[in-house]
Amino acid sequence: MAAAAQLDSTFAALADPTRRAILARLASGQRSVLELAEPFAMSLPAVSKHLKVLEHAGLITRAREAQWRPCRLRAVPLADVAEWVEHYRKFWTGSFDRLDVYLRELQKKEKRHERNRKRRKR
Amino acid sequence: MAAAAQLDSTFAALADPTRRAILARLASGQRSVLELAEPFAMSLPAVSKHLKVLEHAGLITRAREAQWRPCRLRAVPLADVAEWVEHYRKFWTGSFDRLDVYLRELQKKEKRHERNRKRRKR
Repeated sequence: MAAAAQLDSTFAALADPTRRAILARLASGQRSVLELAEPFAMSLPAVSKHLKVLEHAGLITRAREAQWRPCRLRAVPLADVAEWVEHYRKFWTGSFDRLDVYLRELQKKEKRHERNRKRRKR
Repeated sequence: MAAAAQLDSTFAALADPTRRAILARLASGQRSVLELAEPFAMSLPAVSKHLKVLEHAGLITRAREAQWRPCRLRAVPLADVAEWVEHYRKFWTGSFDRLDVYLRELQKKEKRHERNRKRRKR
């Protein structure tokens, strides 16, 4: 898959809370489809559908050898997501910095206001 | 928006190469819809549709004051993506580490093989 198409299918696969929850569970080790289905109020075919989307995106692999075909996390596409989003880090750290500056200015103004009020009261 | 629903709409918005390209262009400064449409072989309504998806996901804002309504990047949802993906970092660095170990073992074996071959030649 080309890089852009791979990112498309990774992001699309991640745009679902059930699929993200499945990945979170696989982070603690391989699981059978039955085990993965357990915490969800969902039919087995519905869970299988989610697993197919994850497998197509290369985010999980399913063992061919064992009869219970355990699912395993495959993190390589997530490394691409991390690399992609890293280009934008300066923007959110920047906005947090600006928010910091703004809050500090606000505190200074309030202190000044408070001092003036006390002065007027005397 | 709840955190999960926000991640859903962020990931869905990012699952398209045109929308990612729009964000990349906005990283160098605000742009009008016309300017954003320029590099794409796409009708204005098609570009507007993409902008609506990005705006709904909170990834861009559109100025209300100016008549040309410039679009601006809003990186806060990307910070959430970075935080989400960070939980999985140990998995891909882990696999790279394992690859490193494997390659080092391979080099050692080759060196040993090379030494044995030279010894036999003498």
